[in-house]
Amino acid sequence: MKISIERAALLKAVAQAQSVVERRNTIPILANVLIEADSDTVTFRATDLDIEVVDRAPAQVERPGATTVNAVTLNEIVRKLPDGALVTLADDGASGRLSIEAGRSHFQLATLPKEDFPVMASSDYETNFSAEAPVLRRLFDKSKFAISTEETRYYLNGVYMHVADGDGSKVLRCVATDGHRLARIDAALPDGADGMAGVIVPRKTVAELRKLLDDDETQIAVSVSETKIRFATQDITLTSKVIDGTFPDYSRVIPTGNTRKLEVDAADFARAVDRVATVSSERSRAVKMQLDEDRLILSVNAPDSGNAEEELAVAYADEKIEIGFNAKYLKDIADQVDRENAIFLFNGSGDPALMREGSDESAIYVVMPMRV
Amino acid sequence: MKISIERAALLKAVAQAQSVVERRNTIPILANVLIEADSDTVTFRATDLDIEVVDRAPAQVERPGATTVNAVTLNEIVRKLPDGALVTLADDGASGRLSIEAGRSHFQLATLPKEDFPVMASSDYETNFSAEAPVLRRLFDKSKFAISTEETRYYLNGVYMHVADGDGSKVLRCVATDGHRLARIDAALPDGADGMAGVIVPRKTVAELRKLLDDDETQIAVSVSETKIRFATQDITLTSKVIDGTFPDYSRVIPTGNTRKLEVDAADFARAVDRVATVSSERSRAVKMQLDEDRLILSVNAPDSGNAEEELAVAYADEKIEIGFNAKYLKDIADQVDRENAIFLFNGSGDPALMREGSDESAIYVVMPMRV
Repeated sequence: MKISIERAALLKAVAQAQSVVERRNTIPILANVLIEADSDTVTFRATDLDIEVVDRAPAQVERPGATTVNAVTLNEIVRKLPDGALVTLADDGASGRLSIEAGRSHFQLATLPKEDFPVMASSDYETNFSAEAPVLRRLFDKSKFAISTEETRYYLNGVYMHVADGDGSKVLRCVATDGHRLARIDAALPDGADGMAGVIVPRKTVAELRKLLDDDETQIAVSVSETKIRFATQDITLTSKVIDGTFPDYSRVIPTGNTRKLEVDAADFARAVDRVATVSSERSRAVKMQLDEDRLILSVNAPDSGNAEEELAVAYADEKIEIGFNAKYLKDIADQVDRENAIFLFNGSGDPALMREGSDESAIYVVMPMRV
Repeated sequence: MKISIERAALLKAVAQAQSVVERRNTIPILANVLIEADSDTVTFRATDLDIEVVDRAPAQVERPGATTVNAVTLNEIVRKLPDGALVTLADDGASGRLSIEAGRSHFQLATLPKEDFPVMASSDYETNFSAEAPVLRRLFDKSKFAISTEETRYYLNGVYMHVADGDGSKVLRCVATDGHRLARIDAALPDGADGMAGVIVPRKTVAELRKLLDDDETQIAVSVSETKIRFATQDITLTSKVIDGTFPDYSRVIPTGNTRKLEVDAADFARAVDRVATVSSERSRAVKMQLDEDRLILSVNAPDSGNAEEELAVAYADEKIEIGFNAKYLKDIADQVDRENAIFLFNGSGDPALMREGSDESAIYVVMPMRV
């Protein structure tokens, strides 16, 4: 193999690929990236056995071929090369070394045979559809904060993407919950997505996927089978196993009878919650919300360190209520609101509360109360 | 005590004070800041028993008095208050609570009696002088990287500030070394500094001092006794114990007979060292320098992972030499060069090398070689 490639294109491809490599590996080949050069393209492939990412970049291929080198080291070298450098990667197949040349810099990295690299088995994808980057970004960005980190409840360690009945029409829906809070985000069903099997997309995959979604103009090709999901742009293909488990019936958790309605500026609310929570050093600090006519009092009482109280002008016309929540959970959901006021719907002090953004029901959040 | 103070002034004073507070305290009062209000000034005092910082801010004092509250919590609260807020701090002396009010936010923090707060004993300072912030900044910024972190050699855990004989006149000198590298930085001797006892300024004090030195226009009043050093601006007084030990005779370490002279662009050199060091994952990676007529080859050979080589155009007219150094040490000293080319002076492969910035001998660095 021998290729020449512009440093910026090489860095982009290698950086994306190496980020799926786990830093602590017991299997040496998993620390490596598989470099394959053919006609006018070079691909970089990395995997942790659950996720595989393949990056393509245009290159001048002098001699096709393939090899593997340490992904982190290659990324570090390319990152440190001067901007604008032309980089040559060459491997004679016999020395067990990949040579990297750029200007007066010469590197040789130990290689491992390309045959040892575990390429993810291909899959028959039953469902194939295309979605705009902003649509997927919204679905995952607004739900991922609620993903559980408890490994015993592995089926909650991801975002459940599935087709559901929305208000009058079918929707593409992402749901995440850790048992304390839940996010349910809907988008219009893309052509071809109907009939898709529901899949739980793992937390790490959600994070890697996010890097594909920054450009508003990108179209993402999504392919789903019972065991795998694949997201592809023109340059990058991200394939991931999905979590082998059953996502619980979340619909029973979403309250339908909550009638006490609070409307509040989400940013003001989030900042006030953050401030009053300061007095308590405990991780699971409870914030008490006291609602009375057009008035919300947020308070925290930590007997050891002190107490805090803040009053907010709000829209509230229902019966008085006092209800407590974990401060972090409240702030997390308020932080999701990006356009309108937050609407909270309460029932009793012991019942879960529902939040949505203004009148928009395509993103709703549920949070369990805490005794205060 | 009851005072009103603008949020920005309060934040500046509290932030500076709380930074000396150790995060893990077994003595509760050491987590607190002592707030004292009198006439038109409020002071915030914090200590870790080795360093004490006192910050003054103008305030509207309605009722003089003093109390102590948790420094980190107070800082967090003030930081989260909206910009421009007027903050009222009040303590009735009986409730054991300090109340903090700003707009519709109300906080009450647990206090501890002001009498329990360990105020650092005052000292008779034999030497008093004044220095411009940029002078002290240069002395400490260029030397601190060489401070040792080995606790057994506690007398190297700081910067040795003393009066020395420079080239023809006395100088104010800062020296730091960890046994592997050494920095010796000189400045013109300020009026009144002659006769000062040499003192070892601890690492943490150097870091805290740095925050006083950002403004080029600031004059710093420096006071030195055998056991303490004090740095004061108009608003802040930083008092620190000095390290009770004898700094070794560093002059014997500085080579005088090095005649092989290399001149190189310091930034190019630092970047090249950084690049070739990438191939080795070991912490103490050795970089080999091969010098021949106007040519420097930097190389690293890590049998497991690979090797790297980079050539630099330099000015070198002496006998060939091959010499190895710890990559981090080389990069650290090259990073100190801010105006001119770096001049290296070598003797043999086993001898320490000397570096300075151009022809300027007021900042010199020594680095021990490594076998490669």
